Amino acid sequence: MRAELVCVGTELLLGETLNTNAQYLGQRLAHLGIDIYHQTVVGDNLQRACEVTARALERSDLVLMTGGLGPTMDDVTREVIAAVTGRALRRDPEVAGALAAQLKARGLRVSETQLRQALLPEGAEALPNPFGTAPGIWVEHEGRVICALPGPPTELREMFESQVEPRLRRRLPPGAPVLYRRILKVCGLPEAEVEDRVADLIAGQTDPTIAPYARSGEIHLRLATKAPDPETAAARFDPLEEEIRRRLGHHLFGRDDDTLAGVIGRILVERGLTLAAAESCTGGLLGARITDVPGSSAYFLLSAVTYSNEAKVRVLGVPRPVLERHGAVSEPVALAMAEGARRVVGADIGIGITGIAGPGGGTPAKPVGTVYVGLSWQHGQRCRRLNLRGSRADIRNRTVTYALALLLEMLQS
Amino acid sequence: MRAELVCVGTELLLGETLNTNAQYLGQRLAHLGIDIYHQTVVGDNLQRACEVTARALERSDLVLMTGGLGPTMDDVTREVIAAVTGRALRRDPEVAGALAAQLKARGLRVSETQLRQALLPEGAEALPNPFGTAPGIWVEHEGRVICALPGPPTELREMFESQVEPRLRRRLPPGAPVLYRRILKVCGLPEAEVEDRVADLIAGQTDPTIAPYARSGEIHLRLATKAPDPETAAARFDPLEEEIRRRLGHHLFGRDDDTLAGVIGRILVERGLTLAAAESCTGGLLGARITDVPGSSAYFLLSAVTYSNEAKVRVLGVPRPVLERHGAVSEPVALAMAEGARRVVGADIGIGITGIAGPGGGTPAKPVGTVYVGLSWQHGQRCRRLNLRGSRADIRNRTVTYALALLLEMLQS
Repeated sequence: MRAELVCVGTELLLGETLNTNAQYLGQRLAHLGIDIYHQTVVGDNLQRACEVTARALERSDLVLMTGGLGPTMDDVTREVIAAVTGRALRRDPEVAGALAAQLKARGLRVSETQLRQALLPEGAEALPNPFGTAPGIWVEHEGRVICALPGPPTELREMFESQVEPRLRRRLPPGAPVLYRRILKVCGLPEAEVEDRVADLIAGQTDPTIAPYARSGEIHLRLATKAPDPETAAARFDPLEEEIRRRLGHHLFGRDDDTLAGVIGRILVERGLTLAAAESCTGGLLGARITDVPGSSAYFLLSAVTYSNEAKVRVLGVPRPVLERHGAVSEPVALAMAEGARRVVGADIGIGITGIAGPGGGTPAKPVGTVYVGLSWQHGQRCRRLNLRGSRADIRNRTVTYALALLLEMLQS
Repeated sequence: MRAELVCVGTELLLGETLNTNAQYLGQRLAHLGIDIYHQTVVGDNLQRACEVTARALERSDLVLMTGGLGPTMDDVTREVIAAVTGRALRRDPEVAGALAAQLKARGLRVSETQLRQALLPEGAEALPNPFGTAPGIWVEHEGRVICALPGPPTELREMFESQVEPRLRRRLPPGAPVLYRRILKVCGLPEAEVEDRVADLIAGQTDPTIAPYARSGEIHLRLATKAPDPETAAARFDPLEEEIRRRLGHHLFGRDDDTLAGVIGRILVERGLTLAAAESCTGGLLGARITDVPGSSAYFLLSAVTYSNEAKVRVLGVPRPVLERHGAVSEPVALAMAEGARRVVGADIGIGITGIAGPGGGTPAKPVGTVYVGLSWQHGQRCRRLNLRGSRADIRNRTVTYALALLLEMLQS
């Protein structure tokens, strides 16, 4: 089965909305073993949306549409499906009844505008939307499928998983080869260094294929193969992973859904260690990343976001003279923050971050992007100066990745 | 000028990478007044990439390509441009020399693979890449332009702003009408309620157009008009904004680049107030959102991410009996956290968040998504219970938005 996405929404073209639906659906379709070769975004324009949808229907077995199902005149997806399949658009009495009941229950007026959401192309099935008012649409047309889901991600995801995925699985031939992937995740090495160490493997790739790509502060190697079952795929991945691991050593910290924070969490739990953090320029992002891991409350005791010098002194006990002599962005302060966080809650390991995320605040000696990450534990301490570039958000996010990489390195040594 | 994006990369189709480049370029092109009608994503496949690029070149004056410019065989964008314009691909000696020098300076080997990045279609211009090895490509072909930029966002953004945007501006007719937008941002009201209050304006829209859309916890109304200059656009937006403001009152908290955290920051600075936070389930995201605002150190003193009960007691002084009697996720604990954060650093306002972000930890009385947000200030306190749904990330992000909306409401009342 060959699928393609058609995302309808001027807000996507204008960059007002980030297209997370395309990423989500790409992942789910790949997981189902459905090939996806094209993704198209088009505005809320009937003619152009019809053109790209008609083209999609020519070359694909499944056209998955997102957005354009709301109540307003801007919402053209119903009209598009009707036009490209040559079907009339009719108000479905059952859908209209359910919609009216839903609106009344929420104390809202049942307007003609709202009832546009009950229009369905003839022969189409409405997919109920438990989290919103606009139902989805499923049409089978000349052996192909058009399926449209509402744009709000929470609605789309729930409906895809509970209604679309089961329908798609029924259409897949039993035992058909499926795309399996394994992502190997690397940190603490520059991208070029990683690529050089595996260059010959990438150049000689056939099956599995290998593709490297950079994330902010991490490098991922994607292995992929089509196989009838997970065991066959694993048998192809394992020797390749072993070879890559031999070349990258402990820098290869995980695979697939592993995250730096998750791997660190596992190590901390295994060794019965606890962690506390003190953040300045990252403003809470380190804590947020660490607590992204369910169960992190077992080892993560505190992150003190001490944005002001006063808080560094009062909450963490950073000595005022150290702040005055070296400035807030300095190695001694990063270490004193790490030590302070550790002491306040009696954690085994403390991590302290202080830096200049920009856009203002840089000096020639400490330009924007200068960050100190300090680690403190019972028997020692370690500090690294980072010189990062990019936007305020880039610098903050990379700082978190590098801080976690430094912590992992310490735990592994 | 009519533009379209062609993003090349299997990782985008498979959802391994979120296409932030499309959002960024959409915003920049809209800002320049360049119409953008299509966005296509295609994998690292020469034939399919050629097909969509050729189609783009038929219907658009500017084809902006992203990705596929790296050194590996997977990187097909150079070949695609050569094929669709019927030009030969040659190694450019100047680009090759600069690349070799750059690689040597970083202590890397100058391999044949690396030198693929110096291939250019005949008559094309190389766009230097100060942050990476792959140069961009600019080709003028039969009155149209194909421009390709590398996929890593930091490289792409720098090159777009310093090299592509100036070239595009030179091609725009002077005085051509440009698309102006104004985004009105609303919080603290359900989406349906916002839509109902402005439904007649949306139904009767001509110029400016009005489109509502939901963000996690906020609702945005986008006004748009094409005008020769910003003053003309503002004269069209102003009466409409006034009317919408009349209907939504203080729920309309800002416009365009305003953020909840930024608006709150301005109010705090104006009134000389300071803020401290205590977070549990949000793990630092509230602090991160507040400190996203440059200059927030003037009023934001502390966020204590007290993920453990021990930290709630030791850092914030939450009384142990309160924790034991009511549980960590409760109104008294949210208020004690707010009060504790305020007291520890002597802030004027304290905000405390405690909840269950899931996936585990829910009970019938307090299911996943139960969150308490407490506010404490010199003369009072306030607490709200939220019942959120969605993934762990949704719940954490929405909690932050609702907590900020509650704070803004308090500041405005």
